[in-house]
Amino acid sequence: MTSTPSTLEPAHIDLLVTGAQVLTCDDDRAMIADGGLAVVGDTIVAVATSEELKPLAAGAKRVIDAKGAIIMPGLINTHCHAGDSLFRGLVENLPLEEWLQTVWKAERTILNRQTTHTGAALGLAELVLGGVTTVMDMFWYPEELAEAANTMGARVCTGGIFFDFTGMDGFEADRRVADAEAFIDRFKDNPLIIPAVFPHGTYTVGPESLKAAWDIAERHDILFCTHAAETRTEQTTVSEQYGRRVIHHLNELGMLSPRTVLAHCVHVDDDEIALMARTGTHVVHNPVSNLKLGSGIAPVPDMIAAGINIGLGTDGAISGNDLDMWLALRLAATLHNGAREDATAVTSQAAVDMLTRNGAAALGMADQIGTLEAGKLADFILLDADAAHCVPLFDPLNHVAYAASRSDVVDVFVGGQQIVRDRQLVTMDMADIRAEVRNLQPSILASIAD
Amino acid sequence: MTSTPSTLEPAHIDLLVTGAQVLTCDDDRAMIADGGLAVVGDTIVAVATSEELKPLAAGAKRVIDAKGAIIMPGLINTHCHAGDSLFRGLVENLPLEEWLQTVWKAERTILNRQTTHTGAALGLAELVLGGVTTVMDMFWYPEELAEAANTMGARVCTGGIFFDFTGMDGFEADRRVADAEAFIDRFKDNPLIIPAVFPHGTYTVGPESLKAAWDIAERHDILFCTHAAETRTEQTTVSEQYGRRVIHHLNELGMLSPRTVLAHCVHVDDDEIALMARTGTHVVHNPVSNLKLGSGIAPVPDMIAAGINIGLGTDGAISGNDLDMWLALRLAATLHNGAREDATAVTSQAAVDMLTRNGAAALGMADQIGTLEAGKLADFILLDADAAHCVPLFDPLNHVAYAASRSDVVDVFVGGQQIVRDRQLVTMDMADIRAEVRNLQPSILASIAD
Repeated sequence: MTSTPSTLEPAHIDLLVTGAQVLTCDDDRAMIADGGLAVVGDTIVAVATSEELKPLAAGAKRVIDAKGAIIMPGLINTHCHAGDSLFRGLVENLPLEEWLQTVWKAERTILNRQTTHTGAALGLAELVLGGVTTVMDMFWYPEELAEAANTMGARVCTGGIFFDFTGMDGFEADRRVADAEAFIDRFKDNPLIIPAVFPHGTYTVGPESLKAAWDIAERHDILFCTHAAETRTEQTTVSEQYGRRVIHHLNELGMLSPRTVLAHCVHVDDDEIALMARTGTHVVHNPVSNLKLGSGIAPVPDMIAAGINIGLGTDGAISGNDLDMWLALRLAATLHNGAREDATAVTSQAAVDMLTRNGAAALGMADQIGTLEAGKLADFILLDADAAHCVPLFDPLNHVAYAASRSDVVDVFVGGQQIVRDRQLVTMDMADIRAEVRNLQPSILASIAD
Repeated sequence: MTSTPSTLEPAHIDLLVTGAQVLTCDDDRAMIADGGLAVVGDTIVAVATSEELKPLAAGAKRVIDAKGAIIMPGLINTHCHAGDSLFRGLVENLPLEEWLQTVWKAERTILNRQTTHTGAALGLAELVLGGVTTVMDMFWYPEELAEAANTMGARVCTGGIFFDFTGMDGFEADRRVADAEAFIDRFKDNPLIIPAVFPHGTYTVGPESLKAAWDIAERHDILFCTHAAETRTEQTTVSEQYGRRVIHHLNELGMLSPRTVLAHCVHVDDDEIALMARTGTHVVHNPVSNLKLGSGIAPVPDMIAAGINIGLGTDGAISGNDLDMWLALRLAATLHNGAREDATAVTSQAAVDMLTRNGAAALGMADQIGTLEAGKLADFILLDADAAHCVPLFDPLNHVAYAASRSDVVDVFVGGQQIVRDRQLVTMDMADIRAEVRNLQPSILASIAD
């Protein structure tokens, strides 16, 4: 805590939360059995015991008695395609290649600015209702997600996509640089929007376009995010085309660095893991989609052992069917134990780190989000702990890793603003979003009929 | 449908549900876009379109307009230890052997009839709130679960445990036969209780005790259920002791048959799979606990290909932390795709079959539960389909397999009796159960302190 409660003026406190089980996720992974936090404006000014916070209650503008709920940092989803939620469950039980061709057919037919905005709102609604306060998202028409997030009050890292073929937005490769620059220009001063560049992958974006994206990232000091080593086929394709595996290829191009966020890394060998570790490259683990699509199981314990910072993502609902970070968390915490026949392959702390502080580090925002600490942005959630699956509760960290679920998320705050209250959206109307999506449903279904 | 609505008298209908998306799980896997069912007493008398059911509404005692919800068979959890919920999250991040020693220490100290009843009520509460209508459960003091289930109105298959050492109930092996017989005698006429025998496993129960349990099963024509081939260590132990692997050992003893339900089968080779298939032995897949404990990944696609009937279980909350059949389902539907790098390794239909009709078949109750059909018991659930993760919804089967979750379960009926209404228990008070468990929490924690 950088400010102790005794130095704070009660009358300045905008929001006080007490009576909670606090999971700070800070460097010491401190937990407080009965505590909370104080917020001024968009910032946490104290994290302390309820006893210590009590003197602040009198003058605080709003006081929440959390009554045994868990308070923890807002979840950080480090790889998503929120707009793809429009196509949830449309294409199922097909081998990967056939699946992808059908998905692209639907996207090409359906996506325009308006439908993408609807999809983005749907995806964001699901995310924030599930406790996500920050999402890193790669999708067509990224401005639509940014605008929807601005309305919702959620934090997003997104920006121009790079793709050497005609995109699902109908745009050609030659406008991607200008679009990426325009995105940065439009949103760079918005406190909720973190611009970045999103080349799709090394098998769909050649060295020249990758270089163009990288130059923008360096010039604006922003993140460079791409899919990497998701499937065995991708590794084969890139190896055949460039004579080196995906991570080596990115390294040869000088694109492994702390500004680099690589989604998936399912098929990486020891050399590639060492390269990513040495360069400070971040990895995003997406177990839900990796399993369902048959991509494989990422070598997460090896990447952790190598010292790579690993965030956690849902990927899009077109592959994972929902955007449930709690499912991603549970898999991160247990899948590798099973796959390696080692009950301690990934610990509960390692998994919860991925969900929170590691995501913040991947986004270059470790000093702003990902933990509950005085001085950080007030991005936090309250989890109900009264449901049948929550009792008994011996340790909030293990509870969060192994038993908590999206339905436990009651309240969500981003930068001090409440965007979910008692399990309902505050800033947008779920009924409107649902109605818009259901209106589109017949045309989405028709888009894949031949 | 064995009775068409036109032959039914409206005045005899106790309950009519219309306006739902119907997932029958019947032999044709029929779905009805806008339909429902009619119930008389404890039995479904019609499953039909809303249009066909409409004439019955006038005289029906109760009519539910399901408004787009999904109606499907109640879930069948074919392997559980409900009472173990008392120890949820108590012992974490330890290697399996050390973990098990600590768990047993807690169980030995805490479990008596009263605490086991509390644990059983807690486990059942979580199960039924999550849509489970029938559970096959192995635990100490099985009478306590049976009594709790009788109060809750849930269906359970349980009965006498067999264990060659002192049990966690403090009982010695020599009373197990009498206890098992007493259980059958006490509950055989209760329509909610399905007596069976539960030898713990071939590494903890010698051939003589197994034979005693088997004889009871044959004499009473009931199920014989045991843990089998859960871990590599178990296979080694049994091989060293008996000179043959677990499934061969059971086969030599004459204990593979359609009355045999084997939980786990993670480490079974092709011979063992063939043996189980040939004998009509049932297997229960428990992916949540198998992953977390580092047991491994069961060869489910091979067992399906061999024609083995595979049910789905949560195992206990001491290993899986919750009793969430939706998580077990999602893993059954996706884990094997990932592990085999084959997106069609287990289809959505195969996974939903495990959750419903296969569980019924394992229990020898395929003619009574597991599908929505006229003539079957009225065990069914209603799932909300309005949440953000439920739109769009193109196909109820894929939605259930890949996106639905425990929080979507709104109403639960067992034998026509409603036991969950609008996400709340009807027959027991969750607040009472929670208070009892929280009272025990300090002594449970103290039980593992040395």
